[in-house]
Amino acid sequence: MKDELFQRIQDSFARQGFMNTLKARLADVTEGQVSIAAPISEAVSQQHGFAHAGIAFSIGDSAAGYSALTLFDPEVEVVTAEMKVNLVSPAKGQSLLAVGKVIKPGRRLCVVTADVFAIDNGEQKLIAVMQGTMVPVGYRG
Amino acid sequence: MKDELFQRIQDSFARQGFMNTLKARLADVTEGQVSIAAPISEAVSQQHGFAHAGIAFSIGDSAAGYSALTLFDPEVEVVTAEMKVNLVSPAKGQSLLAVGKVIKPGRRLCVVTADVFAIDNGEQKLIAVMQGTMVPVGYRG
Amino acid sequence: MKDELFQRIQDSFARQGFMNTLKARLADVTEGQVSIAAPISEAVSQQHGFAHAGIAFSIGDSAAGYSALTLFDPEVEVVTAEMKVNLVSPAKGQSLLAVGKVIKPGRRLCVVTADVFAIDNGEQKLIAVMQGTMVPVGYRG
Amino acid sequence: MKDELFQRIQDSFARQGFMNTLKARLADVTEGQVSIAAPISEAVSQQHGFAHAGIAFSIGDSAAGYSALTLFDPEVEVVTAEMKVNLVSPAKGQSLLAVGKVIKPGRRLCVVTADVFAIDNGEQKLIAVMQGTMVPVGYRG
Repeated sequence: MKDELFQRIQDSFARQGFMNTLKARLADVTEGQVSIAAPISEAVSQQHGFAHAGIAFSIGDSAAGYSALTLFDPEVEVVTAEMKVNLVSPAKGQSLLAVGKVIKPGRRLCVVTADVFAIDNGEQKLIAVMQGTMVPVGYRG
Repeated sequence: MKDELFQRIQDSFARQGFMNTLKARLADVTEGQVSIAAPISEAVSQQHGFAHAGIAFSIGDSAAGYSALTLFDPEVEVVTAEMKVNLVSPAKGQSLLAVGKVIKPGRRLCVVTADVFAIDNGEQKLIAVMQGTMVPVGYRG
Repeated sequence: MKDELFQRIQDSFARQGFMNTLKARLADVTEGQVSIAAPISEAVSQQHGFAHAGIAFSIGDSAAGYSALTLFDPEVEVVTAEMKVNLVSPAKGQSLLAVGKVIKPGRRLCVVTADVFAIDNGEQKLIAVMQGTMVPVGYRG
Repeated sequence: MKDELFQRIQDSFARQGFMNTLKARLADVTEGQVSIAAPISEAVSQQHGFAHAGIAFSIGDSAAGYSALTLFDPEVEVVTAEMKVNLVSPAKGQSLLAVGKVIKPGRRLCVVTADVFAIDNGEQKLIAVMQGTMVPVGYRG
């Protein structure tokens, strides 16, 4: 049974047309940490046949943003102020898993990270590390 | 009439399934600078209805990577080592335009930037600035 | 004759013990752009004899921060939320010059850049490009 | 008694005039991880009296660079290609401690991170997180 926090994040996630385009799904939600999974397919490939850097970035950014969102009241939204990604291995395999975490919460700024893994024949390999800043908006007081 | 350099970049671009998924197209190619355009639609939206940060990142990253590729011999490919994006305005409008440039070319590392603009009713607005590193691979000698 | 804006930035600059340690000086101040110069000496070298990456970062960060500060009322201070530097050439020569600029002003966040140059026998060479976020604090209303 | 790896890193560290200017010292060296400590004093302050962002960056960058250096043969040196820092708390206290780690080793590029802590009356607080790329140079073959 999915809990209330998962459902709240899922409701926002379901409104993201782009996550739907990527066939991404919310894999796990706990306070301050959110995981998102997405298949690697022709639709997200770059010219070498691996997933485009933008896919790792996109699901990592969403996972990191939602990890921040778990810490706020339901009326708050978060937007990405900035994000950096270091790509450490080719995004090769059947799917990607992004794990976003809050490093430093704050009402003005939340510093977040995300690790992105490729799952290739059951083996999980780190392909990208991300570090960035989320800004909560719509905070009442 | 499109020139040879444009055609070479276009050939690589056409093999990127993800650029096709985004309905992105190569807009302009000169030595050290490449522009990519993509429509903003429901398919690339985030939960607020604007384009997902990952779209700006993805076309900016591709534009920056191709700007580096223009400087190398045809057998060379480039991969993104790292990229940072600062999002300065919501990606609101009908389309996005990313302009990638090489700041510092190199056989080991190319430092690149990209500016991403949203086109909203004919008005062009800066929405993201990017700075990163491309690595040429397959260099013979 | 130095103007009022220069003097206001200079007053803050003079309180920075670290800028004094680096023998850095405020070179130029206009609205949205500030330049800082610093000598390259043994005191700021790394193991190869060039200036340490931290020097380029430090004067670039200060130049960028002060470029943001020029846009606010005198009671406001700014702090660095995040900053990224790409080092494009060794910091070789007699002095460094950092030019900080505001790309996107804002009451919550200011996106800034800095270019850092080494001056070697009169020749100016780009050694680092920086991109980051400044946060104004102490804003009344 | 300090071991051979510590001594090798210490020899390089001792040649860094800037680390000497900061009164920084090598605190710990293991394969793939290096810690550097430095006092917070007037000499490294910014205008609010805390340590300048450039200090956290500088010792974090050095710690990260040396963590990469531990993985290579003695003739290899490393240089910083790029580094990003998110500052999460003011650098307030008596000293700073930077812990650098290698996330992904490589002969072309090493992806590294550093956490920087302020020690304030015995309490250790995270003040900065860093993520970047080191490039080994002088590799024979």
